[in-house]
Amino acid sequence: MSRFWSPIVHSLTPYVPGEQPQMTKQIKLNTNESPYGPPPAALEAIRAATGDRLRLYSDPTAERLRAAIATAHGVAMDEIFVGNGSDEVLAHSFQALLKHDEPLLTPDITYSFYPVYCSLYGITHEPVPLNAAMQIDVEDYLRPCGGIVLPNPNAPTGIALGLGRIETLLRAHPDRVVVVDEAYVDFGADTAIPLIRHFPNLLVVRTLSKAHALAGLRVGYAIGQAHLIEGLNRVKDSFNSYPLDLLAQVGATAAIEDREWLARTTGKIIKSRNGLTSSLRGLGFEVLPSQANFVFARHPDRDAVRLAAALRERAIIVRHFRTPRIAEWLRITVGTDEECRMVTDALDAILKQNAD
Amino acid sequence: MSRFWSPIVHSLTPYVPGEQPQMTKQIKLNTNESPYGPPPAALEAIRAATGDRLRLYSDPTAERLRAAIATAHGVAMDEIFVGNGSDEVLAHSFQALLKHDEPLLTPDITYSFYPVYCSLYGITHEPVPLNAAMQIDVEDYLRPCGGIVLPNPNAPTGIALGLGRIETLLRAHPDRVVVVDEAYVDFGADTAIPLIRHFPNLLVVRTLSKAHALAGLRVGYAIGQAHLIEGLNRVKDSFNSYPLDLLAQVGATAAIEDREWLARTTGKIIKSRNGLTSSLRGLGFEVLPSQANFVFARHPDRDAVRLAAALRERAIIVRHFRTPRIAEWLRITVGTDEECRMVTDALDAILKQNAD
Repeated sequence: MSRFWSPIVHSLTPYVPGEQPQMTKQIKLNTNESPYGPPPAALEAIRAATGDRLRLYSDPTAERLRAAIATAHGVAMDEIFVGNGSDEVLAHSFQALLKHDEPLLTPDITYSFYPVYCSLYGITHEPVPLNAAMQIDVEDYLRPCGGIVLPNPNAPTGIALGLGRIETLLRAHPDRVVVVDEAYVDFGADTAIPLIRHFPNLLVVRTLSKAHALAGLRVGYAIGQAHLIEGLNRVKDSFNSYPLDLLAQVGATAAIEDREWLARTTGKIIKSRNGLTSSLRGLGFEVLPSQANFVFARHPDRDAVRLAAALRERAIIVRHFRTPRIAEWLRITVGTDEECRMVTDALDAILKQNAD
Repeated sequence: MSRFWSPIVHSLTPYVPGEQPQMTKQIKLNTNESPYGPPPAALEAIRAATGDRLRLYSDPTAERLRAAIATAHGVAMDEIFVGNGSDEVLAHSFQALLKHDEPLLTPDITYSFYPVYCSLYGITHEPVPLNAAMQIDVEDYLRPCGGIVLPNPNAPTGIALGLGRIETLLRAHPDRVVVVDEAYVDFGADTAIPLIRHFPNLLVVRTLSKAHALAGLRVGYAIGQAHLIEGLNRVKDSFNSYPLDLLAQVGATAAIEDREWLARTTGKIIKSRNGLTSSLRGLGFEVLPSQANFVFARHPDRDAVRLAAALRERAIIVRHFRTPRIAEWLRITVGTDEECRMVTDALDAILKQNAD
């Protein structure tokens, strides 16, 4: 606490990101990074740009990167907003599009940064409980609100919503923005991007940190009709003109252009996820049906905190949230097949050990 | 305009950065980049980090970068805040430390992003006129306020304040934060960093975009007592956990560690600045005494807009601000000696041409 702080600072409870251990020997399955990559084309582009141009400011409008995104998704240049990771894109979306008199609706169990943005910008927030199956029930969102934010698939459950359900939300709130956070969409869910043609109130947010395997490069983007993008640009240009450095721009451009790499690696991860799900179920875990690159699992009679600690003793790091309703669950990132086998072997051993 | 925008968005007038032409044939003297560099050590560090680690999130606390800054400036790790360019560091400073009931004071002629941040965060702003010599007169700031932000040296004038004057401000406002934006300090002004020991209300902001020749990498930082840094971290961790990508972190670390490179290149630029100042004066320009890597100049009987346009026809880009009090001035970045000679030769020819 300091008397120098602006009043808002005293009330903030910042987001706590998953641990980033600096040692390299762990099996790191706690922050949903990709076990493959980055795409070689991205590394080549970064190497080629590592030179004299870095003394000059990067392109504040990221023209080439937006052109690659436009081609990949079949949208216009003015329907694209790029930022320093999808976290920055989300932050600007909260400030630019979601601050209204009525409360913002999000699932109660979801990306835990959403309520933090609400505190930062003084947005009233109303968490909407997932149903008993841990699913988003769209009927619960059909009421007056200042906007809606939900991930598809949701995190940390991994459960996806069909596009018909998202259309229902968009039709029910013609004067409010619905943000669909598609951080994990490439692992099996349907993207809502084609809906932006028909819905002026839809904003889709994407990241290169998961399927594109570039978490360390910090690039995200949003797609929506031009008037929404203009709102985001007004906030961005009042905050930081050049949020993406040159290397992030060229690396992300090459990664988005390499669609064959994306299809191949996401295919591998989906296959591994299905194997991991089966193995965990074979060990007695309940595993939610995931369309993401992680699974959310609980054991009917083992404490999640102890399981996570026992895995850590074996140098395997998974994510546990000390949050009501999900305190008995573990979120496990899908690694390589070998990493998946190591985590299930370790859990098998831990369960047998405790059973003795 | 869009009915979906949050109310604040309608009132924003975003900052307009200097043009970043994508062609390479111009002599680009409009955004105060360094004509030398980047430092080879920074490029080597970036190349070495361009690999598998990019699939993992970058260190959210930028430990190694902060350690390099701590060593360079003789401060503690918890006295350092890093961000995505000094623009992001400034934005967080405005939100975290400068929003109070009384108006924020800045010079009337200064970095034009400051009033934009005030609009974004709803901070009352009171511009304080420079005196007739275009200098900051500290006496004008000795009145109740919510905080003070000023660059040292000031931009676009290039004129520096002595540390005694900054101490006067700090003593006059023991309960308010004084932000000293030292973007250009390495070109001849005295840094206020040693004063943080004695003044809990001082925050010094730095960038790697100017003297370190890494504008394209987007790295800035702030130095102040730990309680101020904690306020900044609370806002940052409520906005974006990982604002600096891996490559920006390693490149900036190497750049800060190479102090010999910094001393050598800033020495060259200072020498060129003094030569450019003399040449412009020889052509009849009034040139303010600059301690920065740019000069601010006006001709007694030539229109600045026309001069800038005539330079542009010769592929030389300088900066002109359509702002009251400085509409007759041009800001010219100090380039290499050859670039300085080309701009003065061009101005010489333009002046002679118009005289015909």
